[in-house]
Amino acid sequence: MKSAKANLQRLRQIFTLPADQFSTLFKIEEEISQNLLGFLRNNVVASDLRPADLERSFADHRVPRQPIFVSEQAEFLLQKVVAPAVNTSSPKFIGHMASALPYFMLPLTKIMTALNQNLVKTETSKSFTPLERQVLAMLHHLVYQHDDQFYQQFMHDNRVAIGAFCSGGTVANITALWVARNRLFAAKTSDDGLFPGVNQAGMVAALRFYGYRDAAIIVSRLGHYSLAKASDLLGIGRNQLIAIDTDARQRVRSKDLQTVIAKLRQQKIAIVALVGLAGSTETGSIDPLTDLAKIAEDNGCHFHVDGSWGGPTLFSQRHGKLLEGISCADSVTLDAHKQLYVPMGAGMVLFKDQNSLNNIEHHANYIIREKSRDLGKHTLEGSRPGMALLVHSALRIFGQQGFELLIDHGIARAQQFAELIERADNFELITKPQLNVVTYRFHPDSKIPVVNDRHQFLNQLTTNLQRQQRDRGKSFVSRTTLTLNNYQSPIVVLRAVLANPLTSELDLQEILKEQEEIGFALLDKLSKDT
Amino acid sequence: MKSAKANLQRLRQIFTLPADQFSTLFKIEEEISQNLLGFLRNNVVASDLRPADLERSFADHRVPRQPIFVSEQAEFLLQKVVAPAVNTSSPKFIGHMASALPYFMLPLTKIMTALNQNLVKTETSKSFTPLERQVLAMLHHLVYQHDDQFYQQFMHDNRVAIGAFCSGGTVANITALWVARNRLFAAKTSDDGLFPGVNQAGMVAALRFYGYRDAAIIVSRLGHYSLAKASDLLGIGRNQLIAIDTDARQRVRSKDLQTVIAKLRQQKIAIVALVGLAGSTETGSIDPLTDLAKIAEDNGCHFHVDGSWGGPTLFSQRHGKLLEGISCADSVTLDAHKQLYVPMGAGMVLFKDQNSLNNIEHHANYIIREKSRDLGKHTLEGSRPGMALLVHSALRIFGQQGFELLIDHGIARAQQFAELIERADNFELITKPQLNVVTYRFHPDSKIPVVNDRHQFLNQLTTNLQRQQRDRGKSFVSRTTLTLNNYQSPIVVLRAVLANPLTSELDLQEILKEQEEIGFALLDKLSKDT
Repeated sequence: MKSAKANLQRLRQIFTLPADQFSTLFKIEEEISQNLLGFLRNNVVASDLRPADLERSFADHRVPRQPIFVSEQAEFLLQKVVAPAVNTSSPKFIGHMASALPYFMLPLTKIMTALNQNLVKTETSKSFTPLERQVLAMLHHLVYQHDDQFYQQFMHDNRVAIGAFCSGGTVANITALWVARNRLFAAKTSDDGLFPGVNQAGMVAALRFYGYRDAAIIVSRLGHYSLAKASDLLGIGRNQLIAIDTDARQRVRSKDLQTVIAKLRQQKIAIVALVGLAGSTETGSIDPLTDLAKIAEDNGCHFHVDGSWGGPTLFSQRHGKLLEGISCADSVTLDAHKQLYVPMGAGMVLFKDQNSLNNIEHHANYIIREKSRDLGKHTLEGSRPGMALLVHSALRIFGQQGFELLIDHGIARAQQFAELIERADNFELITKPQLNVVTYRFHPDSKIPVVNDRHQFLNQLTTNLQRQQRDRGKSFVSRTTLTLNNYQSPIVVLRAVLANPLTSELDLQEILKEQEEIGFALLDKLSKDT
Repeated sequence: MKSAKANLQRLRQIFTLPADQFSTLFKIEEEISQNLLGFLRNNVVASDLRPADLERSFADHRVPRQPIFVSEQAEFLLQKVVAPAVNTSSPKFIGHMASALPYFMLPLTKIMTALNQNLVKTETSKSFTPLERQVLAMLHHLVYQHDDQFYQQFMHDNRVAIGAFCSGGTVANITALWVARNRLFAAKTSDDGLFPGVNQAGMVAALRFYGYRDAAIIVSRLGHYSLAKASDLLGIGRNQLIAIDTDARQRVRSKDLQTVIAKLRQQKIAIVALVGLAGSTETGSIDPLTDLAKIAEDNGCHFHVDGSWGGPTLFSQRHGKLLEGISCADSVTLDAHKQLYVPMGAGMVLFKDQNSLNNIEHHANYIIREKSRDLGKHTLEGSRPGMALLVHSALRIFGQQGFELLIDHGIARAQQFAELIERADNFELITKPQLNVVTYRFHPDSKIPVVNDRHQFLNQLTTNLQRQQRDRGKSFVSRTTLTLNNYQSPIVVLRAVLANPLTSELDLQEILKEQEEIGFALLDKLSKDT
């Protein structure tokens, strides 16, 4: 009995105040916060660790029986987790849509965790509920510019929701298409009686009632993979995600779109949504949103814009007009953990009409009751952390002007990088940046050996080059495969995303220099091998 | 030009090292970390703030044009967000599935944020990828106890996945049912040719090909609301989530289940999944999992167990056997932000068969390529934070013994609370705790006035009592509405969840005392009013 009491005492200590054994953990916290961990400061990844090496540190599938000291775990983390992590904030990490974070995010995150609010309901999030609603309204206003009365009326009206927070762009896109599907196949009375809506009756009954053979979603071939995921999840099917060809600037072609829509209508296939890209993931291209909005309107279908990447471009007076037409969208996805510079795990979907999200409204007996203020009535997820706190802080601390600076700077850097590539002898610019994404490849024309399939050879060269640069760990550029009109078959390209304000021109020059070095070494090796 | 440079310089400062204006933020961080914020320490919420008051602090729908100092935002947060937040770690907050967090989570969260890994792909998460796979394996082993060879073979095998991390139990349940649906209606060749699978072809084509009229999911009437959400999302429809009656201990009745299944089969309705509850959200009850597994097997349908709450009971040698049969489940949901004591935003779904998640596998050109190690191939979400770091640390620092202590303590506290209620003159115990959830109501038999509908009167009394206690802000118990066999109509109950190791017997006595006080005052007021 005494031992049980002693155990409980120990447990309570772990839950309250830090003990001596926390010192190592605090040291890491301090060093990492001050960016003092020497290794991570100068590199992107540890180059000497292969996946199989790493896996050895995480090989035991049993939960250890005995507790260990916090200090022991801290030591383990430093050696085996922190040191071989990826330095996503490195100025030379320009391969994915990750960047350095503003410093104030670190203490804020700790505050958020200490409060550990759950935003599904007000009973576990009191002040965070109106805060999240305000953040959604601020970004809604950025996108839609509705009048003041709209926000005064609906911003905190618990019967409606002008947007929903979630863990990221994928859930946001799924939510938008879920709303679109449920709205298209909503409850309706006919001569045969009441159809309760697809949310109640399912897809088979919905299509039967509405007289369609099938349903489809339309997007450019550069649409994010989450859209295919959504088609699968929603019971529409990946094959019914119709991918439209793009023009020379990687934008969907309106004419092709109209042809496809006409064909679908003729085949009695319902169009759940037309999706426009405002910053495609692979090239940063922006669809002609005004044209798309018009086509969607003419055909009475939901118009969704995936602005996960490009949405915050609206902060820029100079570049914001690239997204013209976005305010006609029925729904828009934004990712705060991308160009709002918030840590991983913050996405949003906004709706032009305050009633849209009621198409997915749901309730329970113990929370999210009908008349409650609980945000969970209108979200795909249930329990959710208070990430809105971080977005709120970013919006206020940077302000429109701060974000404008970040956006303008990123686009200027991308243009600068594109120019460097165009001027360089050994590189080929593949897609010009519309926003801050550049694709290119190492292509020293005269040095490429005579081969059967030159295009295939270059694809393999680009793939190997990207892998080697990644494995060296000094800098990182990603790669993807694009289908472009001026190349006869899919082309492998290097892909750079310029969003980190710490990336300098010198960094970019050095990245190209390293790629040249790797590229020529690969060609050399090849000529020796043959 | 000079001004642009100066601006950029300022921006870079915000991204790198803290400035003088951070001192307020650091002060809050320090105080909140040490639990020194006096107010939050002694109360659950600020009692003097109504929602409308709170909303006034979050009324502006415009992103401010000018940046503000970090110190200004910190001051705002302290006054308007932190002070009126909910103290979910209070020993007297026993209303929802939230608890105090172990202290070490705070510095760990900051480390996680500083690293800002994205677990969708190895290129942004290197060491975190095998770490997450290990965490999934540890919990898989806790549930399924497969032999060592299984884990050695599949734990780090990138062609399969024995589980998936996600933001919480809702996404975990959706993922499980998505897998179940896609496996049931998988690709198949028939005389009519190849059916590509429901993931490709959608629900209508799937049911047509497989010869079903419709599809359904079966669960007890105590199933979590995320299951209805999943039915809607997956195109099955909420009406096809069949809710089965429960017995006196709130467990699904096998006989009713078999009757329902026979009827569905006769109607040519496909059973996508049978769901068992291992700790229902409202009463903590556990379905007879072994019986359910047998019924699912006999009928060839997917057996999913929602162990969001109760899963970690498996750590207890004494109580773990309550979940007997869970290892027969095809899939199991666990929530790390519940009884693994990790901050909000960490759920998991585990699969008995390492190939199950391949039913929702997806790829893209720039990441999650077929042969990659990228975890994003098998998750519903895309970009995700490195929460696995926190679960890994909890599992190692507590160990099986530490979690056992927490589980045993919570169940003992719940039993103690139930006894207090049974002994008290003015309370009625409604459901006995199987785990650590207790439901009851204030019911001073002789003091209840003569009314037309006594049951309805008591329901209203419980509702008002719960609201008043919540608004007073000293302690918090939730309420729900249960349908129970021994009450003629739905009954409103107070619901307590005992998972915070800081909650003492005295806390529980004081909570009851406050409820008594509020209850009698309500009765008094009523008798005066009439």
